[in-house]
Amino acid sequence: MTANVSLDELLELHRGGKLEVTGTCELKTLADLRKIYTPGVARVCMHIHDHPETFSDYTMIGHTVAIVTNGTAILGLGDIGPLAGMPVMEGKAVLLKSMGGVDAFPILIDSHDPDVIVETVANIHTGFGAIMLEDIAAPECFEIEERLKARLDKPVFHDDQHGTAVVTLAALIVAMRRVGRTESTARVVLSGAGAAGIAITKMLQQYGFADITLCDSRGTIHAGRSDLNDAKKIIAQQTNPRKVVGSLADALKDADIFVGVSRKGLVSQDMVRSMAKDPIVFPMANPEGEITVEDALAAGAAVAADGRMINNALGFPGIFRGTLRAQAKDITYKMLFAAAHCLAALTPEGEILPDFMDMSVHERVACAVAEAVEA
Amino acid sequence: MTANVSLDELLELHRGGKLEVTGTCELKTLADLRKIYTPGVARVCMHIHDHPETFSDYTMIGHTVAIVTNGTAILGLGDIGPLAGMPVMEGKAVLLKSMGGVDAFPILIDSHDPDVIVETVANIHTGFGAIMLEDIAAPECFEIEERLKARLDKPVFHDDQHGTAVVTLAALIVAMRRVGRTESTARVVLSGAGAAGIAITKMLQQYGFADITLCDSRGTIHAGRSDLNDAKKIIAQQTNPRKVVGSLADALKDADIFVGVSRKGLVSQDMVRSMAKDPIVFPMANPEGEITVEDALAAGAAVAADGRMINNALGFPGIFRGTLRAQAKDITYKMLFAAAHCLAALTPEGEILPDFMDMSVHERVACAVAEAVEA
Repeated sequence: MTANVSLDELLELHRGGKLEVTGTCELKTLADLRKIYTPGVARVCMHIHDHPETFSDYTMIGHTVAIVTNGTAILGLGDIGPLAGMPVMEGKAVLLKSMGGVDAFPILIDSHDPDVIVETVANIHTGFGAIMLEDIAAPECFEIEERLKARLDKPVFHDDQHGTAVVTLAALIVAMRRVGRTESTARVVLSGAGAAGIAITKMLQQYGFADITLCDSRGTIHAGRSDLNDAKKIIAQQTNPRKVVGSLADALKDADIFVGVSRKGLVSQDMVRSMAKDPIVFPMANPEGEITVEDALAAGAAVAADGRMINNALGFPGIFRGTLRAQAKDITYKMLFAAAHCLAALTPEGEILPDFMDMSVHERVACAVAEAVEA
Repeated sequence: MTANVSLDELLELHRGGKLEVTGTCELKTLADLRKIYTPGVARVCMHIHDHPETFSDYTMIGHTVAIVTNGTAILGLGDIGPLAGMPVMEGKAVLLKSMGGVDAFPILIDSHDPDVIVETVANIHTGFGAIMLEDIAAPECFEIEERLKARLDKPVFHDDQHGTAVVTLAALIVAMRRVGRTESTARVVLSGAGAAGIAITKMLQQYGFADITLCDSRGTIHAGRSDLNDAKKIIAQQTNPRKVVGSLADALKDADIFVGVSRKGLVSQDMVRSMAKDPIVFPMANPEGEITVEDALAAGAAVAADGRMINNALGFPGIFRGTLRAQAKDITYKMLFAAAHCLAALTPEGEILPDFMDMSVHERVACAVAEAVEA
């Protein structure tokens, strides 16, 4: 929490921004300059021109990520625009560098139009080894990601979707192991059908969860609803096997697992009490959860953890590091499951996930991801 | 010169590229992370959202430059594409940081279409305090720069044009002072009607040079030619007051000043001998000049200097630093003349320009540029 940190202290910490772009080579003499700049650099350019496959050896591109946002879904703050969202992008870049050794640079696109975002990223992708989409609102984020993945021969990753899904899955693996449940039989209820909710649903399905019910602000998503966007229509066909029609409270009755990526306060203690015995409760809404961890535990949750404990900072640094190291063309479910298994395996007894300030964790995730790249 | 540096040494120096993106804030504890990332960063975002004018206080944008290229005119190498041109962009960014304290990031746009480049830059400009166009071929570079200057409310600067022109003007001021010539009466011949040649011509005209003749590969540019692109047509109307029709050799007869931004070897010693007494000869073609400095001096040049001595690395770092510091919306001739005068004033006796490894020079240029910003 930052309740004890003043706005003035936060602003002072952000003065001038949080990123810089510096040289990694010596520049002290004229001789140095004539190697890294004209005329020496011309010979390196011609070498790359004659041997294009060596570009990642002699440029920064191979370890560089564009953090692309239009500012329409900044944290839980909504559409505040890319300029006001810049401190998040800079923070994300600091984390990518500190934890993943990856050089990331924010690209702000001030547009709500998926066509503009897709075209712009396609026009500037050459200088980056991978594209991270960040804080772009659903459902546009799905279309943007799909079109870019189809168009670019390099990794495109929407962290709010898949990064969140990876750490959620990792925490679920840990929690299920503790309470003795398995994905094939556990009854899961997800609250929030935005980017994270849809992505977690898809990943859990791919992983083998058979009974998932997704709720949006109007209740359970089912095939009988006429108010669904395209992403939710597909979800309606693939989830809610018991065809629950009703509210989040209705869905939670006898559920084994609750995952929330929606809004503060949507889950009451009575709703937790209505769940199956020893439920797993992950109220991950940002910045405050659907129910507090304390209230969930007091109402009988066997395991409870919120967005501060299940933080996607555990995922994306290692995922990008491993992906770029292996020069993967895409980030596949196999790679993401490898990351989740790695995180689960590294979780200390009694914890829900590893400590994300432990730098060795990110390196281990990177290794697991790189190993999972299809040869 | 890098004649004594092996390609292997240059490649090794470039391994992994020459740039990194690092945090400027401490990230050692969970408390640090919760200030620079969620949840603390959200309060900084909302502060910028509520007070948009403060974005340059709390993000990196105010000191950040996009180095935009499509790789169509990389150094003297021609159209080798943006990927092979990346080492130049990285080198430029290293210089901007080391000499100007400015954070610059390469943006590679793999397109020959001015529309694509203009639209793409317009779509990503939000994250940058200024745009540097780099190594984009003429005549497209003129259109791209003009359209972006008209469209964006921030500095757009094509270094190959104006950066080169500033240092050329500075060197001319120094050389004319030494041989006792003035801009109003000196007869100038320029060889090369690409980005640099056109820009030098325009800047010298603005500065007060009254007799300039520009030559391209077919000879003098004059109103009678039917093979001129738009930029050259305008130049034809505004230059060549004595209506010289003929070759570069014809133009050079009795000229006081030669400036070359064309190709190696175009000027012979006889051509230098045909110039007025004590001529100024700047054979600045990259990487080798229109004539060597030694040959020019032996043929009677009073002052001779090539592109290694008249290096635009003396211009752009200070120009961008001063422009961003003053939060200027544009880079005007007044600011560029201030940079040229500053460089001329700082030139030691007997030299043609200051030492660009002297970091105080760039700071002095920045101060001069910032002071010249219209209030």
